[in-house]
Amino acid sequence: MSYEEHKWFIEHTSPGTAHMFGVTSFLRSFRTDYQQVEIADTELYGRILILDGKIQSSEFDEYMYHEALVHPAMLMCPAPRCVLVIGGGEGATLREVFRHPMVEKLVMVDLDQKVVEQCRELLGSWHQGSFDDKRLELVYADARDYLENIDDRFDVIISDVPEPVEVGPATKLFTRQYFEMLKERLTETGLVALQAGDYGKPFIEAHSAIYNTIKQVMPFARSYRSFIPSFNTEWGFVVAAPYKLDLPTTFMFDTLIAERNLTLNYFDGITAKGMFSIPKDIRNIIDNETRIIDDDNLFTTY
Amino acid sequence: MSYEEHKWFIEHTSPGTAHMFGVTSFLRSFRTDYQQVEIADTELYGRILILDGKIQSSEFDEYMYHEALVHPAMLMCPAPRCVLVIGGGEGATLREVFRHPMVEKLVMVDLDQKVVEQCRELLGSWHQGSFDDKRLELVYADARDYLENIDDRFDVIISDVPEPVEVGPATKLFTRQYFEMLKERLTETGLVALQAGDYGKPFIEAHSAIYNTIKQVMPFARSYRSFIPSFNTEWGFVVAAPYKLDLPTTFMFDTLIAERNLTLNYFDGITAKGMFSIPKDIRNIIDNETRIIDDDNLFTTY
Amino acid sequence: MSYEEHKWFIEHTSPGTAHMFGVTSFLRSFRTDYQQVEIADTELYGRILILDGKIQSSEFDEYMYHEALVHPAMLMCPAPRCVLVIGGGEGATLREVFRHPMVEKLVMVDLDQKVVEQCRELLGSWHQGSFDDKRLELVYADARDYLENIDDRFDVIISDVPEPVEVGPATKLFTRQYFEMLKERLTETGLVALQAGDYGKPFIEAHSAIYNTIKQVMPFARSYRSFIPSFNTEWGFVVAAPYKLDLPTTFMFDTLIAERNLTLNYFDGITAKGMFSIPKDIRNIIDNETRIIDDDNLFTTY
Amino acid sequence: MSYEEHKWFIEHTSPGTAHMFGVTSFLRSFRTDYQQVEIADTELYGRILILDGKIQSSEFDEYMYHEALVHPAMLMCPAPRCVLVIGGGEGATLREVFRHPMVEKLVMVDLDQKVVEQCRELLGSWHQGSFDDKRLELVYADARDYLENIDDRFDVIISDVPEPVEVGPATKLFTRQYFEMLKERLTETGLVALQAGDYGKPFIEAHSAIYNTIKQVMPFARSYRSFIPSFNTEWGFVVAAPYKLDLPTTFMFDTLIAERNLTLNYFDGITAKGMFSIPKDIRNIIDNETRIIDDDNLFTTY
Repeated sequence: MSYEEHKWFIEHTSPGTAHMFGVTSFLRSFRTDYQQVEIADTELYGRILILDGKIQSSEFDEYMYHEALVHPAMLMCPAPRCVLVIGGGEGATLREVFRHPMVEKLVMVDLDQKVVEQCRELLGSWHQGSFDDKRLELVYADARDYLENIDDRFDVIISDVPEPVEVGPATKLFTRQYFEMLKERLTETGLVALQAGDYGKPFIEAHSAIYNTIKQVMPFARSYRSFIPSFNTEWGFVVAAPYKLDLPTTFMFDTLIAERNLTLNYFDGITAKGMFSIPKDIRNIIDNETRIIDDDNLFTTY
Repeated sequence: MSYEEHKWFIEHTSPGTAHMFGVTSFLRSFRTDYQQVEIADTELYGRILILDGKIQSSEFDEYMYHEALVHPAMLMCPAPRCVLVIGGGEGATLREVFRHPMVEKLVMVDLDQKVVEQCRELLGSWHQGSFDDKRLELVYADARDYLENIDDRFDVIISDVPEPVEVGPATKLFTRQYFEMLKERLTETGLVALQAGDYGKPFIEAHSAIYNTIKQVMPFARSYRSFIPSFNTEWGFVVAAPYKLDLPTTFMFDTLIAERNLTLNYFDGITAKGMFSIPKDIRNIIDNETRIIDDDNLFTTY
Repeated sequence: MSYEEHKWFIEHTSPGTAHMFGVTSFLRSFRTDYQQVEIADTELYGRILILDGKIQSSEFDEYMYHEALVHPAMLMCPAPRCVLVIGGGEGATLREVFRHPMVEKLVMVDLDQKVVEQCRELLGSWHQGSFDDKRLELVYADARDYLENIDDRFDVIISDVPEPVEVGPATKLFTRQYFEMLKERLTETGLVALQAGDYGKPFIEAHSAIYNTIKQVMPFARSYRSFIPSFNTEWGFVVAAPYKLDLPTTFMFDTLIAERNLTLNYFDGITAKGMFSIPKDIRNIIDNETRIIDDDNLFTTY
Repeated sequence: MSYEEHKWFIEHTSPGTAHMFGVTSFLRSFRTDYQQVEIADTELYGRILILDGKIQSSEFDEYMYHEALVHPAMLMCPAPRCVLVIGGGEGATLREVFRHPMVEKLVMVDLDQKVVEQCRELLGSWHQGSFDDKRLELVYADARDYLENIDDRFDVIISDVPEPVEVGPATKLFTRQYFEMLKERLTETGLVALQAGDYGKPFIEAHSAIYNTIKQVMPFARSYRSFIPSFNTEWGFVVAAPYKLDLPTTFMFDTLIAERNLTLNYFDGITAKGMFSIPKDIRNIIDNETRIIDDDNLFTTY
């Protein structure tokens, strides 16, 4: 059976490492103005979305990623009514935001209309109709252009764009200047959540540079991580706020989840305790990071 | 540079998934009476040991694995003087045990003399001379044969043998009957630590079956995990004891580490908190497991 | 550039060999009642058709394969008016047959209507409209069922079905009994042409068994081969007739091509000389073959 | 069984094509001053030598390659007494030359002593003791340096160095100026034989440029090819002489082989007929080639 397998997506994570995904069907493959896109059905992880050769999320475990990205910030904000999502073309970030009953407005800003449209058509189990929610305002624009031209403020801003490990459309969405822009657009109790790159050694340097950069701008910033099977690694996130804040306890997270009547598969108080308790060696790397990503000094790697 | 790469170790983790490791040099490749063995130097993870096509540990991150395996049980046992290690041919399990200053005797039982000898020669950064420690008694034997023929009791027993996902030499070292044998050989304050298989969905079923099986035998049993980069997944462990016990707090673990004057890279109180705080979805899988591995009903998978 | 490549078709030719084809787009992937089908666009060979994990032909070099299969038999038959093609779903075998101006009728018998329909839609550069030729009669049937129920005779019968190296729909189209059936359906000056499997050592055993089998049935039989780049090997063919015959000389082939006013890319007299002049070691293998494929003793391999 | 395979040599032949060789053992892997070297035992082709990621020859089929390289030129020269071999570190070119009973002296010039020494140790089935033949003079030098400093003339000069498809040590051993140097060192009835690169479309451009270049220097030049299974392609050669010459007939080659009492596995008169009868499409490419490789205008490809 096994060596019958003949279609593979091979994700190169460095010149000396790669992951092979047996594919039952490549559904879409196209180049937009911004990136190369593939949507495929895999043997093990169901449907996957691939941008520029990197897996973005899989049907099998996207709930882990999206719950990890969305709920810590949403629960740490008392009554988030107005939310901004940057990127997140699959629509699953929307889905998780809309679970919070007090959300009145969600603006999603994505650069790449073609990707969003294909996700809408093919990734139904991700968005589950979120694109049709009346509370959604969908804007196709560069996030920085968009932010420069609005006066609105948001209770939670969620950045779900590819981390800057290669030259790509999102390179300028992880700089000090950009985080300053986000800060300007937060309400008084507002928070920011970022997907923030690979958390596994030795690939953690993008994460640690991002985390160190946002720490320069926001007094509260916490790095956390979740293991995502289809990524074959732990994935990093950051939650931050422009004021001092304590991380909720296990009990506090569980209480808030109950109050908002959320039915979650992945996230709860104990999950949070695991996510925010970072192993000693990684903690040292992150704490000793000195790089600051600047518009004039972008992050680059191999 | 990258497509110059031409030697690869490909680890197949299921018919539809595999990981590719760029190899700079294959140092050894041989078949023993029990298994196929390779030792290679890789681009990213330094030296690796491969048994039957599966990576056992890498120079780059073996400290994570071995600290996670050894220290929880060793620290939960007050004054472990006499330790039994089953398997662990690389010698790094020995190294971590010997850090604890009260250890007087360490018996290591391994089936495969050829593997141990090659590890001793080539994996110096793993064992760091532990095979020469006067406190070590090295026995080449099947663990069950060994256990049936001794009367000794141990403060800690550490099982570091391949989990039973395929037919291999260690299939019978994860059964209810075997765990009963271990229990018989523990002192009054003794504990068992097991490496216990892949912790990532959907491969966690071996772990959950192992965990459920030992729970039938020992009143205290906790499942925990660490992300190991070269494994491309979280790895599962179990610590268990034949009496009721509370997991030490973060503060307690840190206090014990200080008392024993241990210098660790990976493990401390916060690391422990992360390791034992299992995400909700995985917790559900583990808690709902009903299979019991029995000598007459061995674990089998795809 | 190169390690951006992330979609690959991997053709396993034996447990220890495989060929990787960088794919720009997988266009179709489906299972019919008979086989798994893929149509893909590759980096190097343009569009390819894959059945059960094996490349059938590529846009880049299918002319080599189809000219080699069709023209020797067609030119050795004086005035072939009525031709039977078995298999050949891509339609390129038809295209080459129709070049011969005296062809009045071509019956194509293929088992798998779904494959033919997809080829008709997507492999336009193969069939070049041959499916619309008035002289074509297209029959969806098992070849043996078809042959048992007709009385027609053909000047040339061309078999373009997968060789029997694995259990597949064409296993019974290479037996002694089947070749007897073909013989019954030939006109007095009729010939048979077969695609007849891999010609490269050590995979030539299917070819040599096929060749030895047809030799038992037909007094004239010649084995020949062409190197097909996208197959990564030389490919074997057989031309045979139920009477004694001499292979045309270089000059004779060129004269016949000129008389029939054929414009060919690959085949001519010198090409034929190369195709029929087999290296000594391979000649020995073929001449020493003793196996005969029988309905009751089918060909099997590793 | 098959997916147990976990060590692979992957030969990249272009950004969108690669061949996978299941490896049972990598015996050597080292970098010399000139190139990266590997010697491995493979599942299908026995032992292989790899230079800079490209397979040079395999135990399984090296006789095809070396007989094709050596015997046409050796047989076309009446009584070759003094032979020069450039490159050919495996020693199998020597072996084939020494079969000819009139050879009195064979000078081998190779750049890379380390490669030759490893071949001598590990590739016994290739050289079969040829390095110990009294008639051999072994020189470690750059071929051009060597040729500039001698006055000797040779009956046959055989060039067995990597073709110039990438920047490598042999780039300057395929230029017009170099071929002029060879011409100067030939006796009156002398010939040159070259290994001359991949013969399969679309990779034939190096071959056709080499062939066109030597044609500018020598009045007789013939391009020919052999399919080598472990190369996964047909391989090109050139035989040339600085005077007019006719290619021997099938009968003539067989007569000469009998006279010299050669026992060959691959080469004979019919083999030669196949090797020199080039398919029409490839003939057209070669005949229409206009590039000339010059010291000041080296061959380059992707």
